[in-house]
Amino acid sequence: MAGKIIIVGLGPGNYFDMTARAKSAIESAEVIAGYKTYVNLIPELVAGKKIIATAMMQETLRAELAISEAQKNLSVAVISSGDAGIYGMAGLVIEKILDLPENLQPEFEVVAGISAVNSAAAILGAPLMHDFAVISLSDLLTDWQLIKKRVKCAAEGDFVIALYNPKSKKRVTQIEEVQQILLKIKNPQTPVGIVTNAGRAGQIKIISTLEKFTQEEINMFSLILIGNSKTFVKNNFMITPRGYEIKQGVQ
Amino acid sequence: MAGKIIIVGLGPGNYFDMTARAKSAIESAEVIAGYKTYVNLIPELVAGKKIIATAMMQETLRAELAISEAQKNLSVAVISSGDAGIYGMAGLVIEKILDLPENLQPEFEVVAGISAVNSAAAILGAPLMHDFAVISLSDLLTDWQLIKKRVKCAAEGDFVIALYNPKSKKRVTQIEEVQQILLKIKNPQTPVGIVTNAGRAGQIKIISTLEKFTQEEINMFSLILIGNSKTFVKNNFMITPRGYEIKQGVQ
Repeated sequence: MAGKIIIVGLGPGNYFDMTARAKSAIESAEVIAGYKTYVNLIPELVAGKKIIATAMMQETLRAELAISEAQKNLSVAVISSGDAGIYGMAGLVIEKILDLPENLQPEFEVVAGISAVNSAAAILGAPLMHDFAVISLSDLLTDWQLIKKRVKCAAEGDFVIALYNPKSKKRVTQIEEVQQILLKIKNPQTPVGIVTNAGRAGQIKIISTLEKFTQEEINMFSLILIGNSKTFVKNNFMITPRGYEIKQGVQ
Repeated sequence: MAGKIIIVGLGPGNYFDMTARAKSAIESAEVIAGYKTYVNLIPELVAGKKIIATAMMQETLRAELAISEAQKNLSVAVISSGDAGIYGMAGLVIEKILDLPENLQPEFEVVAGISAVNSAAAILGAPLMHDFAVISLSDLLTDWQLIKKRVKCAAEGDFVIALYNPKSKKRVTQIEEVQQILLKIKNPQTPVGIVTNAGRAGQIKIISTLEKFTQEEINMFSLILIGNSKTFVKNNFMITPRGYEIKQGVQ
């Protein structure tokens, strides 16, 4: 008999921004699997439990270890920061489970969380009042040409654009390429918000413009939000109007 | 002296999927402002408080009433379902506040919540493991031509596409127009997930295809997720692989 795996989104990583469902799922689990930086964000919740804390990039191993624990009829929580369903662990764990013969498949459930795009938006003001596109600049598993194409399509559709993984120690030029693609289509004065360590110690909020934002500090803990053609900045808050006011004839 | 307004995302509307920050903000507020259907979702939290419950479409009035309560030095929680920062009340309230002379501006804060796209994804499996675009089909405040253009751009970029407000009693043909636009670009067998009343009483999950999904029950409480070219369905779960596996040469 196989146990159950709950794939849980922690949100930004502080208890206050976690849902009651996420907290309860972690509390009731016998085994916790997660990237060690995230496990370390919730020491009180995981105390006394068996911990499978693997390094970054070891997602596949982590998913397999979690499943093998559940197959011992244990309850397992696999944790992701943000929303486990947005660039998180949900996909990999579910794929691995459904690849197994049916009698070896643990039950599973995904518990949504506050993703970085939600947290960053709340900190910046109200940039997501209209349609938006979410793009990860990590090219580890995605062809860079496709990522660039998506940036171009998102700009042509005048979406607000959220960039996950904009920069890492080894990957520093992509954000400038993205900026160049956007500058061909969008106004250089388009507001750009950068939130680093949203909802965690060391949170930084910067509001800049499309023309200048790459001069700011951006790292792997940053989320970047690029406005649409109507987004404006007032008193250091970034706001996208909820509509284009066509009914009032303002357009 | 002006009080404080907290614009709070409830998540789907059950206590279990609310963050501790949202719950605490509502508990500590003296006045609650919100669309009455959402106020009614949380009777225990709002009991004994002054309630400003306006009808749908009265967002501007609701924002103004909330601000005038805060100007009496009361603490006010303006509630939205989902994430107040995603098609919610955050933008309108902040705009109205920042339009006031500085000495009449209440303090404000946005508390993020689980939006419909997060909830629906968790119910469907793991459809948001890769880049996605979020589009509202409501043409009350947005020109329908722009909405159609965004649908086309999102399809050309092979984004997973989340559709908010796909259909209402008066607005029934748009979803079929969207389907036709997508069928010109995407495979007719592309998986489509429909979640209605996510996380609430009467929750329904349907997995269909691009070719057929408009035959299913879709209403104003539905969120639709349309897969990218790699999204697949297995055991009635919808999964988008997290990458295109280029590093393994599978592509």
